[in-house]
Formats: sequence, structure tokens, C-alpha cells
Amino acid sequence: MSLDRIRLASLHSKVMSAELAADMIEDGMTVGMSGFTRAGEAKAVPQALAIKALTTPMKITLMTGASLGNDLDKQMTEAGMLARRMPFQVDSTLRKAINDGKVMFIDQHLSETVEQLRNHQLRMPDVAVIEAVAITEHGHIVPTTSVGNSASFAIFAQKVIIEINLGQNPNLEGLHDIYIPSYRPTRTPVPLVKVDDRIGSTAIPIDPAKIVAIVFTNKTDSPSTVTEPDSDTQAIANHLVAFLEQEVLDGRLPKNLGPLQAGIGNIANSVMTGLIASSFENLTMYSEVLQDSTFDLIDAGKLDFASGSSITLSERRNKDVFGNLDKYKNKLVLRPQEISNHPELVRRLGIIAVNTALEFDLYGNINSTHVCGTRMMNGIGGSGDFARNAHLAIFVTKSIAKAGSISSVVPMVSHVDHTEHDVDILVTEQGLADLRGLAPRERAIQVINHCVHPSYREALLDYYNRACEKGGHTPHLLAEALSWHQRLDETGSMLIN
Amino acid sequence: MSLDRIRLASLHSKVMSAELAADMIEDGMTVGMSGFTRAGEAKAVPQALAIKALTTPMKITLMTGASLGNDLDKQMTEAGMLARRMPFQVDSTLRKAINDGKVMFIDQHLSETVEQLRNHQLRMPDVAVIEAVAITEHGHIVPTTSVGNSASFAIFAQKVIIEINLGQNPNLEGLHDIYIPSYRPTRTPVPLVKVDDRIGSTAIPIDPAKIVAIVFTNKTDSPSTVTEPDSDTQAIANHLVAFLEQEVLDGRLPKNLGPLQAGIGNIANSVMTGLIASSFENLTMYSEVLQDSTFDLIDAGKLDFASGSSITLSERRNKDVFGNLDKYKNKLVLRPQEISNHPELVRRLGIIAVNTALEFDLYGNINSTHVCGTRMMNGIGGSGDFARNAHLAIFVTKSIAKAGSISSVVPMVSHVDHTEHDVDILVTEQGLADLRGLAPRERAIQVINHCVHPSYREALLDYYNRACEKGGHTPHLLAEALSWHQRLDETGSMLIN
Repeated sequence: MSLDRIRLASLHSKVMSAELAADMIEDGMTVGMSGFTRAGEAKAVPQALAIKALTTPMKITLMTGASLGNDLDKQMTEAGMLARRMPFQVDSTLRKAINDGKVMFIDQHLSETVEQLRNHQLRMPDVAVIEAVAITEHGHIVPTTSVGNSASFAIFAQKVIIEINLGQNPNLEGLHDIYIPSYRPTRTPVPLVKVDDRIGSTAIPIDPAKIVAIVFTNKTDSPSTVTEPDSDTQAIANHLVAFLEQEVLDGRLPKNLGPLQAGIGNIANSVMTGLIASSFENLTMYSEVLQDSTFDLIDAGKLDFASGSSITLSERRNKDVFGNLDKYKNKLVLRPQEISNHPELVRRLGIIAVNTALEFDLYGNINSTHVCGTRMMNGIGGSGDFARNAHLAIFVTKSIAKAGSISSVVPMVSHVDHTEHDVDILVTEQGLADLRGLAPRERAIQVINHCVHPSYREALLDYYNRACEKGGHTPHLLAEALSWHQRLDETGSMLIN
Repeated sequence: MSLDRIRLASLHSKVMSAELAADMIEDGMTVGMSGFTRAGEAKAVPQALAIKALTTPMKITLMTGASLGNDLDKQMTEAGMLARRMPFQVDSTLRKAINDGKVMFIDQHLSETVEQLRNHQLRMPDVAVIEAVAITEHGHIVPTTSVGNSASFAIFAQKVIIEINLGQNPNLEGLHDIYIPSYRPTRTPVPLVKVDDRIGSTAIPIDPAKIVAIVFTNKTDSPSTVTEPDSDTQAIANHLVAFLEQEVLDGRLPKNLGPLQAGIGNIANSVMTGLIASSFENLTMYSEVLQDSTFDLIDAGKLDFASGSSITLSERRNKDVFGNLDKYKNKLVLRPQEISNHPELVRRLGIIAVNTALEFDLYGNINSTHVCGTRMMNGIGGSGDFARNAHLAIFVTKSIAKAGSISSVVPMVSHVDHTEHDVDILVTEQGLADLRGLAPRERAIQVINHCVHPSYREALLDYYNRACEKGGHTPHLLAEALSWHQRLDETGSMLIN
């Protein structure tokens, strides 16, 4: 036990077991928990709550930053305790419950959840459960490997439960920059003008009287599930690097590009890794999650500074980084997701945003979330926060999935998360489509020529040509527009046998 | 002739006929013209150009603020001189050419065009043609009834042609506030924190050496085509006012609401007119186009201040306002559309955004632009700029069109301009659906219960119930999702006979 982590001595009396802390969360409550991309989530209290819910049925609304690790969403789903869940998740058990209509999932732009809370458009959390490395002399909370929505949850909630994780490096203190926008109608500009600006405090300022329980834990974050680059992701990275190099040559980008953002997952991570072999130097990131590639770029001397809302690493990388935090600390900052993803800042800074598409269509509309238009995968995450206002909105995907039975390039996407208005560049392993300043019919030609897999190219071109005969600004054949998805649904493949 | 409108005497020699000025625009050029929602467009030069193009074929890329009046888009289309057109239009002749694939139309968020130019994502204008009431002692341009993209077009273009419109009230000088964001990577916050803040200059600052021609005109702006409220638009207004009143009672909105934005057109204009009979006072607007309703609200003592990018009035209202400009001038400001629609400001100010939907679906996705998914109406305009970051994103439409043969509420929209993530409130004459914080299945129930017309309610509910049997976070039957539109396309009606 390390009471020295609780520097406000009057709070020492609040230390208790996870089970006792969990008892403060009651049926019907709205609970805000820390955690963003499997980093920095509260670990003991949700688990205790899930175990309790197996025998004492309860339903809560659970808000987090983004996804949780340590199978917590799975355990809480299996305990039947999740009535409502927002704004993001990645758990297969929870996903099934969502798609079965058993858990109401509210899929949100990650920058917007706390803004909606602040304006009372959503119900305020009754309780916040926040992982910390320490509590300061003033009773303020020092987060761990993510900030996410923790700061606003703690500020809004009537009761705050803190999990002090002794397994997290106490040297994380000082890494965070907690800035909270003021209330309207007297809100002022967010005063951030460079990726490494610090505009807030290093701990979450709350009234310590709200801290009702403190629980000690030492469980580690789950490692990221990121895989090594393969030949397809390498090809995507190569296309993108060649494009960015040409943009620099053409004078449209500075030599160090703009601040980079990369969505979570294998493809975006691989694309960032691909920048190691590029000619760019003095790169910066203004992103939401900092993955292995961020630290690979720092180690390669390519990346000067990275701003994010969380750090999510593979098992290998985890020890390197958190074991040698001093080496990286002056090159990093973690911010609330409202700030890491803020439209005001994305537009001001001129971010190059790289996010993964589930599928895209002839005209550059993007589906990031729904398989065959109906089944939720994870959620839109921050992709919309970045794509709408980015200097360059880039979406990447492999052109086919499931051994070619699925084309990621389709006549019409079955669900739209990003409209054609918000998409500049599309990249698959086949090539890169530059859609800037193009009308829909011109965009279609780029997509057909550069992105679709050869096994679907002829069918897509045929659809497009026949749609053009019918006419329209955005030609489509309504009877066929979703036929590829229908075929997949019925036969397991988009290919015609 | 009024040379006193050209206060920099060295420019007097640049006065010439519209025909001579039009000769400076050559085949293949990119031309940026003033004009936003039929207000303040250059009138003589485009007309002279269209006449010339009838005998001397040419093709240009034409950029404006938004729509033009005086049938200019019609004349230029008929002359076959438009190769590319952006970012918005409302002309039926041009619309047909766009849908026939003869004019490449780039439909853009209205705040983004000049940002894309500034970053060289679009080709810079060779020539700008700007309507003005005067040229200052420094050779700066004083716009007329709109600012739109005029300031950046004039700043970016190598050559500037000015039309001094003697028919526009010279007292318009002082109404404008021209602020241009600085270049990245040293861009600073837009320093606007209240709707009536003035952050720029009253004229467009350019090097007078770029002014190659000055043409005198006296043609008036085309009157708006807005119609009087009818019982349906009145019902929509009533539902919305009742909702807003309840928001105030519940403490979620201040008594003067937040700054209001209303899209162009009859329905949004009627909704604003409906506020006259409400209990709200000291209202403000932070919008793009100021329509009749803005001045009706000022006259009724309800509206304290209105910020916009243009003033577009009916014939009746035109004389009242511009004939008595002193009465209104201290309650108005006109800004570049980049600033009137800026995401940074929309989020900071907490705008209540009211825009018109062409159709919406069970889950709250909005189609603002495409009839049956293919044929462009006008363009997305500023609706996306506002809806994404608004305090409340409200979309309004009548539940049926064409005497009931079209339902504006459908199983799946045939084109998506605003995704479910960006839509809070839907209103038809049937009622209001409050979608805040709801999962898709819950949104569907709200839409079915409150928005759809009774003649389509049963069919929509039946679709939804059968889709739920199939499952998914967002239940759909892909084979039927667009069947209402197919039926409309094939039989002229969505109704099953």
C-alpha cells in the first residue's frame, strides 16, 4: 500500500476495497469511467461491479473515453448490467449485445460527449471512476496512460471514485495537460496554437470533498492488438508517402508536413511506421491515440513531438516506453479527448488525418462502422472530428477482405459516416485516389482506376457506366446500389459465382 | 457616373465597359465572383461574358460565394461557358446541366472553399469579379449586400475586376467586417467571442495595382423567392417553439436561447418568423443569410443583433430595409462566409442551427441535396458547417411532398449529407423527434411516432419491425431500404397502389 500516492492526507480515510467502492454505484445510475483505447481504464471497481451484478441485477448507463481493456466491457455485458453505453467500444461480446438490441449504444464523435454533458443534452454522470497515479496535495487527480473524458466526468459527477494504480509509472505525473473549455455564452478561444503548447494543469482539478472512495490496484493496461505491417499495409504506406512527397515538391506542404493524426488500428499504425523510411523529418503528431508507430518514429529521430489523449502499446513496446519514460516525456503530452480532437484545433493546426475505412464507394463516401449497413463494429471514434476539418482527410483500407469475398470499394456504401464532402484522399494497396476539387463523376474514375481490387474493377466500372446512362450528378442505379452487400449477406461473398 | 465612389483617384483610369472588362477573362481561367444567396453578385461582367461566349466559345471554372441572382447561372450555362462550378447553385438550367454531366459541380461546405484555396488544394482564381459600393482611399473594396468569398477571391486573384453598383445603398459601407485567418503553421484563434464582435476591417484589403478594370452598374439584386408561411410551416414553427420553451424551463437554454442560424428557404424562414409570437426576447442570430424573418424579428423587438454573410430579401422587404438602412445598421454585420460558418465559432458560440432537409430516415440521417440519390438540387450549403458543431442541430421539413406522393421520412435516405451523429432534433408538421442521447432503435421510434405522415406511418413501422427481426445496431433490410425511392422513380409515387 502506498499512501504516499495520496498527498492530501485527509483523503487517506477514503481508502477501501473495490467491492465497497462498487457498492456506491446503484441501479439506474449514469457512470463515467476513465479509459481510452484500452489505456488507463479503471480496472478494479468495474470488475467488482460486474461480479456483484451477477447476483444483484442492476442496469447502468456507462460512459467512457473510448474502448476499455481487461475484458471489462465483456464482463459487464455478461453480467447484464449495461443498459446504455457510449461513445465507443471494441469488445466482441458487447458488440453482439449491441447488435442484438440488448445494449443501447450511442455512437458519438469522441470530441462531443463532454460538450453534450456540459450543455445537459445528456444526463450527467452520478459517479465517476477514474484511474490515477496519484492524488495531489490539493486533492486533484493525476491520470495514468489516458485522459479521455476523465477530467470532465470527474468535474461533473457528484461522487468520484479513484483507483490508484501502483503498476503505472508514477513518473507519468507531469505528462498531462488538462484544459476545460469555459461555459457559454462567455466561452473564449482554446488558446492552443502549436502541438506542444501546454494550456492547462497537470492534474484534474476537483473539490476533494467529492472523492468518496479510493481503491488501490496494480493491474496493467491490456496490450494493444496491433499486428506487424504486411505487404498490403506496406503498399498503402508507400502510396501515401509518395503522395506526400509530391505534395512537398509541389509546394503544397512544408517539408515536415503538418501535424499528423492516425486512427487506431493496424492499417493506420502501419502507415505511420512507413514514414520511418520516408525523407520527412521533424514530424509532429496531434492525434488521439499514440501507438507503437509514434515511438518507432521518435526512436528513428523522425518525430519531434506527439500530442494525444492516450498511449496504447504492444507488450514489447510497453516496457520500452514506460520503463524509459524520461527518454520520451519531453516529447509527449496527453490531453482530454475534447481537446485532442477539437474541431477548432484540427482546423487551426492543419492536421493531416489518416483514418481507416471499413468500406468506401465510387464517390468517396465512407462507412467506418456498420457491416452490411446494419451491424456495428466499433464506432465512429474520432475519425469525424479529424476528417471534417483536416488539412488533408485521408482514408485507408485494404481493397478486399476475407480472402477476396468482400470488396472494400463498393457502388454505394451501406452506411455513411463521412460524406464525400469530407474526404480528400483514398488509399488501398492498389493505389491512391486524389479526390480534391473533383465532381462525383470525376471522383468515380479515380476510385475505379486507383483503388478497387482487379477482381471487382470490371463490375464496378460496369455499374458506373450503366448508372451514368441513367444520369444525375451522382449516378446510381437504386435497384443495384446495395446489391453487393445483399449478395454478401445471402451468399457470404460479394463475388458473382 | 459617380467617380466619387472611387476614392483612390489613380484608379479612375481603370473605368471601362463591362464588355472590355469581360475580355480580360480568357478560356481556361478560374474565376472567383462575388455573390451569396442571390445577393451582391457581380452583374454586368458575367452577363457580358455570357453574351461573348455565345459567339466565342470558352470554358471557365466559376467559383462564387453561393447562388447568383439575375439569371446569371442560367445565361452562363446556356452559353456553354461553365466547365466547373462551385460551391453552390440554385438555378434550374444549371441544375439540369449538372445532372446531365455537362457541368462538373463541386458541392462544398460553404466555409471550406477559401480554406482549400489558401492551402492550394484547389486552383487559385486567375481573376476575381467583385461587386462594390465603393473603393476606398487605399484602393480597398467595400462590398454590397454580401461578403461571401469575395474577400479571399480578391486577395488570391492576380487580377481584380470591380463592379461599382450605383443601385446599392452607399450607406452599406461600414456594415462589413472582413477578417481573414492567418496562414498555417502560425495561425491564431479567430478572436470572435460574441455575435456582435467586430474583428476585421470594413473593406477588403488588396493591393490596388491588381485592380485591372472598374465597371459601373445599377442593376438590383434579384428578390428572394421566399413565400409566406402556410399551415404546415406554421405547425413546424409551433412544434419548435414549444420545444425551445421547454428547454428554457428545464434550464438547458438561457431565456434568449443561443445565437440562431437559419438555412435559406421557405421553411427555415417561416420557422424564424414563428419566433415573433414566442415568449423569447433579446434573441441574436449568427447565420449565413439574413432573410425577411431577420428583419421581421428586429421590427418586432425580438432580435437584438444579426450576423450574416448576406442579406437576401423579398421585393417588399428590400425597400424597407435598404431604404431605412440607418434603422438597422447598428444591429447588423456581414462577414466572409468562412467566418459566418466557421466550425470554431459555431462550437464556441453554441449556435441553434435550423436547416431544411430534403428527406431524412428512420435513424436521423439527412439528405439535403440529392433527389432519389442521384439528381442534385442545390448543394449542401452551410448546413454541415452548422449542424456538426451546433449546440442544437435541428432539421425541418414537411413530412410529405408533391401532394403526398413523396414521403420526406423514409427507411433509408438515398444520399447522406448529415449523418445520425450530427442530428439532434427533427421537425415536421406532424411533430418533433428529440434524438439526443438515443441509440438508433430508439431514434426510429421517435421518428415513427412524431415525424412521419400518417399515410406512410404504417409502412415505415412495418419496415422497421421486420428490420429489427433481422437484427443489427441499425436495423435495415437491404433489399427494401431504397425501395420507396425506386417506386418513386418508376411510378412517380412512393405510395403502393
